[in-house]
Amino acid sequence: MTTQSGKAIITLTTDFGLLDEYAGIVKGVILSHCRQANIIDLTHAIAPQDIAAAAMSIGHSFRFFPEGTVHLVIVDPGVGSHRRILAVKARNHRFVAPDNGVLTPLLAEGYFQEAFHVTNQELFAGTVSKTFHGRDIMAPVAARLACGMDISLAGQRLSRADCLLIPLPAATATHRTITGEIVHIDHFGNLRTSVKREDIARMPAGARLKILCSGVVVDGLSTTYSDAGPGQAIALFDSRDHLEIAIAGGNAALALGGRIGGRITITAESEGSVPFT
Amino acid sequence: MTTQSGKAIITLTTDFGLLDEYAGIVKGVILSHCRQANIIDLTHAIAPQDIAAAAMSIGHSFRFFPEGTVHLVIVDPGVGSHRRILAVKARNHRFVAPDNGVLTPLLAEGYFQEAFHVTNQELFAGTVSKTFHGRDIMAPVAARLACGMDISLAGQRLSRADCLLIPLPAATATHRTITGEIVHIDHFGNLRTSVKREDIARMPAGARLKILCSGVVVDGLSTTYSDAGPGQAIALFDSRDHLEIAIAGGNAALALGGRIGGRITITAESEGSVPFT
Amino acid sequence: MTTQSGKAIITLTTDFGLLDEYAGIVKGVILSHCRQANIIDLTHAIAPQDIAAAAMSIGHSFRFFPEGTVHLVIVDPGVGSHRRILAVKARNHRFVAPDNGVLTPLLAEGYFQEAFHVTNQELFAGTVSKTFHGRDIMAPVAARLACGMDISLAGQRLSRADCLLIPLPAATATHRTITGEIVHIDHFGNLRTSVKREDIARMPAGARLKILCSGVVVDGLSTTYSDAGPGQAIALFDSRDHLEIAIAGGNAALALGGRIGGRITITAESEGSVPFT
Repeated sequence: MTTQSGKAIITLTTDFGLLDEYAGIVKGVILSHCRQANIIDLTHAIAPQDIAAAAMSIGHSFRFFPEGTVHLVIVDPGVGSHRRILAVKARNHRFVAPDNGVLTPLLAEGYFQEAFHVTNQELFAGTVSKTFHGRDIMAPVAARLACGMDISLAGQRLSRADCLLIPLPAATATHRTITGEIVHIDHFGNLRTSVKREDIARMPAGARLKILCSGVVVDGLSTTYSDAGPGQAIALFDSRDHLEIAIAGGNAALALGGRIGGRITITAESEGSVPFT
Repeated sequence: MTTQSGKAIITLTTDFGLLDEYAGIVKGVILSHCRQANIIDLTHAIAPQDIAAAAMSIGHSFRFFPEGTVHLVIVDPGVGSHRRILAVKARNHRFVAPDNGVLTPLLAEGYFQEAFHVTNQELFAGTVSKTFHGRDIMAPVAARLACGMDISLAGQRLSRADCLLIPLPAATATHRTITGEIVHIDHFGNLRTSVKREDIARMPAGARLKILCSGVVVDGLSTTYSDAGPGQAIALFDSRDHLEIAIAGGNAALALGGRIGGRITITAESEGSVPFT
Repeated sequence: MTTQSGKAIITLTTDFGLLDEYAGIVKGVILSHCRQANIIDLTHAIAPQDIAAAAMSIGHSFRFFPEGTVHLVIVDPGVGSHRRILAVKARNHRFVAPDNGVLTPLLAEGYFQEAFHVTNQELFAGTVSKTFHGRDIMAPVAARLACGMDISLAGQRLSRADCLLIPLPAATATHRTITGEIVHIDHFGNLRTSVKREDIARMPAGARLKILCSGVVVDGLSTTYSDAGPGQAIALFDSRDHLEIAIAGGNAALALGGRIGGRITITAESEGSVPFT
């Protein structure tokens, strides 16, 4: 489907960083197999071997690309072991990644369409390194998919239940309290959490919300960064529609000492109740 | 004009950094609206919310791209507030950016051609986030421009005087002295200043120049980095034709403790006068 | 040859870093001269002016790209001096770089095909900066090569012996001992060394190997990162087929204090001999 509407797009999500030539070499391999591929870096800054972070990143980002895009996700601490490599179709996008849970959001019901265990060695590099399957197996397969190869030629069909799922951070709710955690600290120092807009929507209507995170108490939700004075902590929905803690014009992670895994608690108070202390 | 001579080019200048998937998502949105766009990163390392730095960067860089290029500049501390978004034509390039002064160099006489307040909601994402207009408004508009949309369809025409200008660092000159400031410290540690080659050209002919910056006194101008011995501080014109202080084979920022905003003074001395002390 | 099989590819290997717009400007210049060029970043993270590191990087990486690719290597401490600029053909790839040794691996017998001193000023920018030949000379030449210009039009033909070679780290072997050095520390903290798989292959058959590096003694070779328990130091062949020291699930450079230039020693012990102490 990609070749009809334009150049085949391949995105990269890796923990390679940008200090080395690893990402560049993967691009060379892709172009060697699919010269017209348009390769787009989603991120190379996943923390080394942080499978959950990569899963959340690709699970959110893929939707901004056209259908038919191929997403190559290389966060692969088990490289060279017996972990499988997957080619997955979900929401009319294609994904190539290790079978280590990194595709968990795409394996969800309503997303998942089909999966294959990548076993077709004709697609691989002539010599396969024990330490860089991204280069020698995943890149050549992704390139062939981008250039029109049917995904069923990648290997043996798997059911959804055959693929590894990992638990991802979420929010837990009682009647008046939601508890979540910080899942990501972005370049601006915003503390992004596992609490979604839909979690908040289930709180009692008209209640005042108190948000406790990284030692700061925030009173109510803001809608934009410019709602508060400089240096003031605010809570608002980020561009993923998750709750985040930010400092207007500043860096919340530095100012508050936030860290990934830190807790966030949202409490609903009825009008007129004693304020949260 | 772009479609005649080749693929549409879109450049990105942002303060997103490369830790997150923000830049990658913007690219996905662009390709969703203009599949043949060729997206080029100018820089994602503008300091968070540093509008002046972004203005100087794009004001210099755009000229190295072909006419017709679309430049997307996303440094947007006022996102979600009532600040406008602009589509500007200048020097036969197109620019999409917040109306916060970041396009100041392009609004100068001799550069500016026309400007529009981006109000055509048909171009926007279906749902517009309050925190990421780069993704939901600016990227779709830039993509349409790259794929041939006339800029006048972006919204309402503005005059040059309608657009926000901000003061940018410059040099001030008396008869024998020029004073400027450090405006950027590059990856090599070179201290780039607001003093231009044309400022120096106005100094008395034949005068010896003494340059004082970050506590070091440099005697005269060099023409290349290899003019001096290792570790020696030199002053020379950088690739923007601005004066910079460098250390041959070293890092001037680290060696001299230079910082953005630090002062540089150039004094012209007649032949035979008492040296600057 | 490139135009027949698809879009012309140009790779970039530089010490520019990603803080500035230097790499983006080079891309603008390339696209101004060859609109259909597909520009791929190999790395911009070569340490400033580290010619040997750039030589090792491009000497390994180029082979993963299709024949006909143009590789632009800009690590140029001598910019503005009388050092030459080269256009070299090797293994059916083209290379544009300063004549400072950065192309040493491509000048080896079996690789080298032809070389030219870039002197054709018609190819240069109208004004050539003394500090940025990458932008004003090398990029325009690389772009013309990518768009089909014959390499012989770049300037005057040179013999292989005319081009500067520099010594690159290697391994030295006696009967039972190999000595090498750490040549690179990658994003994962792996200590990559100058010892090749073929060096190890010359050790006595059946011997037990003891590897000493950064104060740790490793017993024998592993084949994958998952061969060892978490935190354990291992030695294995990396994706370049060089010996590297890694910590399973960790960062060897941080854990062991490894540094570039540090020594690695591999000793072969007969079965039954007294263990290395």
